[in-house]
Amino acid sequence: MPTPSSLESLIEALRCLPGIGPKSAQRTAYYLMQHDRPGARHLADSLLRALSALRHCKRCNTFTEVDICERCLSNKRDARLLCVVETPIDMNMMEQTHAYTGLYYVLVGRVSPLDGIGPRELQLDQLLARASDGVVQEVILATNFTNEGEVTAHYLAEMLKSRDIRVSRIARGVPVGGELEYVDAGTLAQAVRERRSLT
Amino acid sequence: MPTPSSLESLIEALRCLPGIGPKSAQRTAYYLMQHDRPGARHLADSLLRALSALRHCKRCNTFTEVDICERCLSNKRDARLLCVVETPIDMNMMEQTHAYTGLYYVLVGRVSPLDGIGPRELQLDQLLARASDGVVQEVILATNFTNEGEVTAHYLAEMLKSRDIRVSRIARGVPVGGELEYVDAGTLAQAVRERRSLT
Repeated sequence: MPTPSSLESLIEALRCLPGIGPKSAQRTAYYLMQHDRPGARHLADSLLRALSALRHCKRCNTFTEVDICERCLSNKRDARLLCVVETPIDMNMMEQTHAYTGLYYVLVGRVSPLDGIGPRELQLDQLLARASDGVVQEVILATNFTNEGEVTAHYLAEMLKSRDIRVSRIARGVPVGGELEYVDAGTLAQAVRERRSLT
Repeated sequence: MPTPSSLESLIEALRCLPGIGPKSAQRTAYYLMQHDRPGARHLADSLLRALSALRHCKRCNTFTEVDICERCLSNKRDARLLCVVETPIDMNMMEQTHAYTGLYYVLVGRVSPLDGIGPRELQLDQLLARASDGVVQEVILATNFTNEGEVTAHYLAEMLKSRDIRVSRIARGVPVGGELEYVDAGTLAQAVRERRSLT
């Protein structure tokens, strides 16, 4: 006896969610249909609304419902600082620190030779134009400290330096609240190498 | 600078999925909007289709797109056996064994005093009518071996026995392929108590 086709198709559609395998897709589909139909309807509506409303900001690439996002248009941000991040989520994380008041540029991805993504795929012309608009005085590279993020940062640094633009990289080291005992050796080695003078 | 409202609402709507907390709801929303818009659209469509097409079979309570499901109408199933399960997923698990050819009854829930669900909430009249229709000769209780499942099985057994209906419970014991070393003491004790004679 087959599963009803609409249920089958829902189970398969749920697989598009990251981290959902066949077993949890099935469990989720049954759960929604049995226990949370209002939630399922709300989810469907929200997906459709987001799909039609959300696009990329023409200046910084983050998600927005207008052409240029509020942050890029705001006069409360320090336009001399441009922070480069890999994803809109990373931008959110930066915002949550309340330690940064400049503007952002969200990369379309990151250099990842293993996935066939070279610098050319990152559409860096827009970033370059932005960084050399005469207003920006410093580009802060805040890509991840993964291999791909580091390669991307390195590439961007070379590209910007050769055009005489000031570039910096966010600091690596022991996390705040971190105990040396539990920090990996690579991080600790870096923290020693990049130690700050206190006197 | 606020997150665009359609994105905010998508993040919140994703929380209806079991096992999705605030952090993974955010990650999922960004992922879908950035990397898998076709998947998101497909998911929305499938949710809406399932919501409008799926209902409960009038005989066995499982999900179906018609009034009475194919399985209940089939003449290839042994109508003398009625297996009671807690959810449509459990029914699927039973089907996958290919060891059972009878019919099913899916409970609306299970007795769970802590959640305020007593036997009255389970709408057992339908099960009772079904079990005493003159065709069913044995009711097999296949509720979970959790506290709630056991209480439910106990309650159903008492109710059916008092009406002179034959009742059985699926076996408890060491799982197939299981090693005694890794089985919990309760299961092992039960396996000893319910040992089968081989001679």
